[in-house]
Amino acid sequence: MRAILLLSCKDQKGLVASIANFISDNGGNIVNLDEHVDSDEKMFFIRVEWEIGGLKFGKEELHSQFQPLADQFNAKWEIEFAEEKPKLAIFVSKYDHALQEILWRYKLGEFDVEISAIISNHDDLASLAENYDIPFHFFPISKESKNEQEKKEVELINKLEVDLIVLARYMQILSADFVSNFPNKIINIHHSFLPAFIGGNPYKQAFERGVKMIGATSHFVTNDLDEGPIIAQDIVRISHKDSVKDLVRKGRDLERLVLAKALHCFLEHRVLVHKGKTIVFE
Amino acid sequence: MRAILLLSCKDQKGLVASIANFISDNGGNIVNLDEHVDSDEKMFFIRVEWEIGGLKFGKEELHSQFQPLADQFNAKWEIEFAEEKPKLAIFVSKYDHALQEILWRYKLGEFDVEISAIISNHDDLASLAENYDIPFHFFPISKESKNEQEKKEVELINKLEVDLIVLARYMQILSADFVSNFPNKIINIHHSFLPAFIGGNPYKQAFERGVKMIGATSHFVTNDLDEGPIIAQDIVRISHKDSVKDLVRKGRDLERLVLAKALHCFLEHRVLVHKGKTIVFE
Amino acid sequence: MRAILLLSCKDQKGLVASIANFISDNGGNIVNLDEHVDSDEKMFFIRVEWEIGGLKFGKEELHSQFQPLADQFNAKWEIEFAEEKPKLAIFVSKYDHALQEILWRYKLGEFDVEISAIISNHDDLASLAENYDIPFHFFPISKESKNEQEKKEVELINKLEVDLIVLARYMQILSADFVSNFPNKIINIHHSFLPAFIGGNPYKQAFERGVKMIGATSHFVTNDLDEGPIIAQDIVRISHKDSVKDLVRKGRDLERLVLAKALHCFLEHRVLVHKGKTIVFE
Amino acid sequence: MRAILLLSCKDQKGLVASIANFISDNGGNIVNLDEHVDSDEKMFFIRVEWEIGGLKFGKEELHSQFQPLADQFNAKWEIEFAEEKPKLAIFVSKYDHALQEILWRYKLGEFDVEISAIISNHDDLASLAENYDIPFHFFPISKESKNEQEKKEVELINKLEVDLIVLARYMQILSADFVSNFPNKIINIHHSFLPAFIGGNPYKQAFERGVKMIGATSHFVTNDLDEGPIIAQDIVRISHKDSVKDLVRKGRDLERLVLAKALHCFLEHRVLVHKGKTIVFE
Repeated sequence: MRAILLLSCKDQKGLVASIANFISDNGGNIVNLDEHVDSDEKMFFIRVEWEIGGLKFGKEELHSQFQPLADQFNAKWEIEFAEEKPKLAIFVSKYDHALQEILWRYKLGEFDVEISAIISNHDDLASLAENYDIPFHFFPISKESKNEQEKKEVELINKLEVDLIVLARYMQILSADFVSNFPNKIINIHHSFLPAFIGGNPYKQAFERGVKMIGATSHFVTNDLDEGPIIAQDIVRISHKDSVKDLVRKGRDLERLVLAKALHCFLEHRVLVHKGKTIVFE
Repeated sequence: MRAILLLSCKDQKGLVASIANFISDNGGNIVNLDEHVDSDEKMFFIRVEWEIGGLKFGKEELHSQFQPLADQFNAKWEIEFAEEKPKLAIFVSKYDHALQEILWRYKLGEFDVEISAIISNHDDLASLAENYDIPFHFFPISKESKNEQEKKEVELINKLEVDLIVLARYMQILSADFVSNFPNKIINIHHSFLPAFIGGNPYKQAFERGVKMIGATSHFVTNDLDEGPIIAQDIVRISHKDSVKDLVRKGRDLERLVLAKALHCFLEHRVLVHKGKTIVFE
Repeated sequence: MRAILLLSCKDQKGLVASIANFISDNGGNIVNLDEHVDSDEKMFFIRVEWEIGGLKFGKEELHSQFQPLADQFNAKWEIEFAEEKPKLAIFVSKYDHALQEILWRYKLGEFDVEISAIISNHDDLASLAENYDIPFHFFPISKESKNEQEKKEVELINKLEVDLIVLARYMQILSADFVSNFPNKIINIHHSFLPAFIGGNPYKQAFERGVKMIGATSHFVTNDLDEGPIIAQDIVRISHKDSVKDLVRKGRDLERLVLAKALHCFLEHRVLVHKGKTIVFE
Repeated sequence: MRAILLLSCKDQKGLVASIANFISDNGGNIVNLDEHVDSDEKMFFIRVEWEIGGLKFGKEELHSQFQPLADQFNAKWEIEFAEEKPKLAIFVSKYDHALQEILWRYKLGEFDVEISAIISNHDDLASLAENYDIPFHFFPISKESKNEQEKKEVELINKLEVDLIVLARYMQILSADFVSNFPNKIINIHHSFLPAFIGGNPYKQAFERGVKMIGATSHFVTNDLDEGPIIAQDIVRISHKDSVKDLVRKGRDLERLVLAKALHCFLEHRVLVHKGKTIVFE
C-alpha cells in the first residue's frame, strides 16, 4: 500500500530530513520524492510517495500522527492513499468528445477513479452515461433557475463526497458562489493556449488573428474567467489552409489529450497550487 | 535560372491555366506550385517557381510581359529571381543572439542574401558586425533625436535599396512614420506566443501567469504593437522549476530559430499578406 | 461537387498547363493545387482539387475524357470525387483503442467513409462493432487455417469493393499472398518511430534501449515487415520514470492520433506512392 | 555555496532519511531533491542539491565525511560543488556548427565551464578557437598514426584534468583503447533519432527510407558504435519536399540544440548511468 504526501510551507532547514525520518521511523520506504524550493518566494514544495509497511497504528491514524510535524512547519498538506479511488463528478453540455475520452480511459483503467456522477444542463449525453453505468443528472439552466439549480448541484456533489469536478466542455459559466465551494477542486479545459484568446469562440479568434498554432489549456477554475492556475497545455500547428472548422477538428484532439493529462496529474496527487500557479510534480 | 511568382486576386475560373500557359508559352518548366483558395473570402493565392528556359526576351522583360495578365485578374503580384540576392538591413540593440544566428546562417550559405547594413541605437555590436565585414551604422536615439535619426535611417535604407528590414531584438519601438515607409517589409521577433503577452517583459509576464510553455513569434511590423501578420511561431515546454532567468535562456533558443524560419520563408519568396494574416507556402 | 486528381509521371514541360487547361476547358474551378518536382528523380507529382461545373458530359465520363492526356504523359493517375465515400475494412484483434478512435471520428463526421466491415481473428470486439451497426466478421486463424481464412477475407473484401484496409492493431502478420492483392491499399499503425524497433514488442525494445522519446508510425503494408512507405509519424517524450506500462499508455495516444492522421490524408486523396516512399500533399 | 550529490545503490529503507540527516546535521539546506526508485531493478537513484552552511569542517572534507554512509549503502556516488567549473575538452573535425553553439553559449555564461582544449584531426577550426582564446591542439590522424596520436590525446586530457570530452561532430571513430580511458565521460552527438540510422550518413539513410521526421541524439560513447546511453533526443518534421541537403540544414539546428541540452544536464550534474541507460534528473 502506498501513501502520498503533498506539502508546502515556508522554506527552512531540515524539512526533508524531518519528513523522511517520519516515514522511515514508521517503517515506510520512499519510492518517489520530488522537492522544489522557490528561492525568490522562499517556499518549499514536496511530493513524497512511499510504501507503507509495519505501521504501528492504523493507516487512518497517519494523518493525526503527521499533524504535529506539519504544525511545526506551519504547512499546508495532505496525505492520500494510492489505493483509495478519488471520486469524480463530470460536468458536460452537448459536446461529447472530452467526456468520451475520460470514459474511455476510465474503462481502460488509466484513471483509477470512481465516477460518481455526470451532471449536465442538457440531456443529450444521458445515453452515453448510461452505456457506462454512470448516474446522469440533468439540471436544465435558465437565467431564472441558475441559482437554484446550482444549489442543487452543490448539494448533490457534497452528498456524493466528490473529490474533483471536471468541466468536460461544460458550456455554462459557473457562478462565483458555486466556485467558492470547491477551491482548486474544479478542472476546466479551455480551447486556447491561455492567456491567448480568453472567453468565447477561441478558435474563431485564433483564425482571425492568423496564428500559426492553436492550443488547449487545462486549469483550475477560479472566479476570474480563464485566469485560474494552469495545470497542462499543449499546441498543434496550423496553416492558412485551415478553416475555423479545421481548427475545431484539430483542437478537439488537443482538448482531449490536455484534459486527460491534467486529470492524470491530479488523480496521482501531483498538483500543488500556490499563489495562482501550479507546481506539477511530473 | 529560376523565377518565382507570388500572386493574389479575387478567385475566378481559369487562373491556374492562364498562369501555367504563360509560363509554358515562354519555355518555362514549373518545379513547384502551391495554390490556395480561401472559400470564404473568395480569394486566390498562388506561388509558382519555374525554370526559365528559351525566353524570347530578356528576363528583365518578364514583368512587363506578365503585366497584362495580372491586370486582367486585377492581381497583386511580384516576380522574383532566385539568383538575385535580396538585400537586408538588420536592426539590433544590445542582445546579440538573434544577430549571431543570422550571421552564422548567412556565412554558412543558408540565407542567400546580401546584408547591406547593421543598424543600431547602441554601439555594443559594432565589432561583431566588423567580424563579418558588414557596415555598422550607429544611430543613438533619445526622445528628442528619434524623429531625426529615423529619417536618416530611412534615407540610408532607401539608398541601399534594402528589400527587408529585420528587427533582431531591436529594443526601440519604431515610429508610425518609419513603419509606414516599409509595409510588409519589416520582420520582428517577439518573445511570446502572440497574442499572449503583448508588450514589454513577456518572459516575466509568462512566469507570473504560470504558463506551461513559452513561445516566440515572428511577424511583420505594423503600427499596432505586436499585432502585425504572424509568419512563424514555436513554443518550448517549461515547468515550475524554471525561473525567469531560465525562461530567458530557453526562449533565446526559440527566438533564434523562429526568426530564422521566418527569414527563410521570406527570402525564398514564400510569404503573402492578406488582411492582416499571412499565407506561407512552405 | 469536387473532383481530385492525383498524378505522377516523368517531369516534362507544360504538364501543369495541360492539366489546368483540361479542367478549365471543362468548366472547372481549381480550389487547391499542390505540385512537386523531384529534381533528382526528374519526377512530377501533382494533386489538384477542383469544383466541377458545367460539364458537357456526365461526371463518370471524366475518366475517359482525361485518359488521352494521361496517356500522353505516360502517367500513373486517379480521379476521385469528394462526394463519393471510400469503403473501409478494418482489421482488429483484441486491442480496441485504435478501432474506438476510428469509430469515434467516423461518427463525428471527421472521416467521410463507409465502414463496410470490421474483420477480426478474435471475437472480443464484436459488440463494439454492433454498437456502431457495422458488420463484424470473425475469422479465427491458426497455423493450419491461415491460408484458407485469408482467402475468405480476400473474397469478402473484393465482394464489398473495399477501397482501403486499415490494420487497427491487428496482431497477425498477413501473408505475402494476401498483401499482394492490395498494393498501397493496406495501412498499418506500428508502435515505434520506424525504422527504429521493427518487429515485436517495440515498447519493450524502446525501454531497454533507454530512448528519451517513443513514437508511432503509420505506413502502407508491403511484404517487407514494417518496411512499407511511411505516411505519418509522431513522437512523445519519455523519461527514466516511465515503465514499459507507461510507454504502452503514452504510446496508445500516439497510435490513435498517427493512424487517424494517415487515414485522414488517404481519405482526402492526398497520398501518392513512388519507389517505396510517399508524397503526402498536406 | 552549493553541493550536489548524485548517488545510486540497491534500494533499501531509510536511504532518503540518512542522506537528508547527513545534510541537515552538517547545517545544509536542501534546495532540490529528485529521487527515483526502479521497482523492477530494485535500484535507488537520487540527486540532491543543497546550500552548504556552517560546516564544522572544510568543504573538501565533505567527501570523506560522507564516505562511511556511502559504504554502508554500497553506493556509487559523487559530490560536486556548483561553484567549481568542470573542465571540458572539445573534439572537432571540419563542421563548425556544434562547436560554434557551445562557444556561443559558453561566452553567454550558459555553460559554467572551463574549456581546457579544442582538439582536432584537422586544422580548419583553429582560428575559431583562437577567437575565443582557447588552446587548439591539432592531431592529424592516419591509419598508421592513429594509435600514437590517440595516446598523445589521452596524455593531454589527463594532464589538463578534463572532466568531460565532447565530440562536436568529430568525424573519427575513437579506438576502444581511447574510450576505455573515459567511461561515461565522452558525449557524442549523432544526427539521427537513435537507434534508427546507426553509422554513417544518417540523413541519406533517412531520406531513402522516407521518414517524416529526422532526429538527433546525444549519448555517452561506448565501444559499441552509437549504442551508448542516450542523454537527450529531439526530432523535427520533414516532408517529401525536403532534399538530403534540406535534411542536413534542418538537422544542424537539432544537433546544436540536443548537444547543448545534454551538456547542460551533464554540467549541472543531473546525469546518472545505470546498465546502459541514463537517469536524467531534469
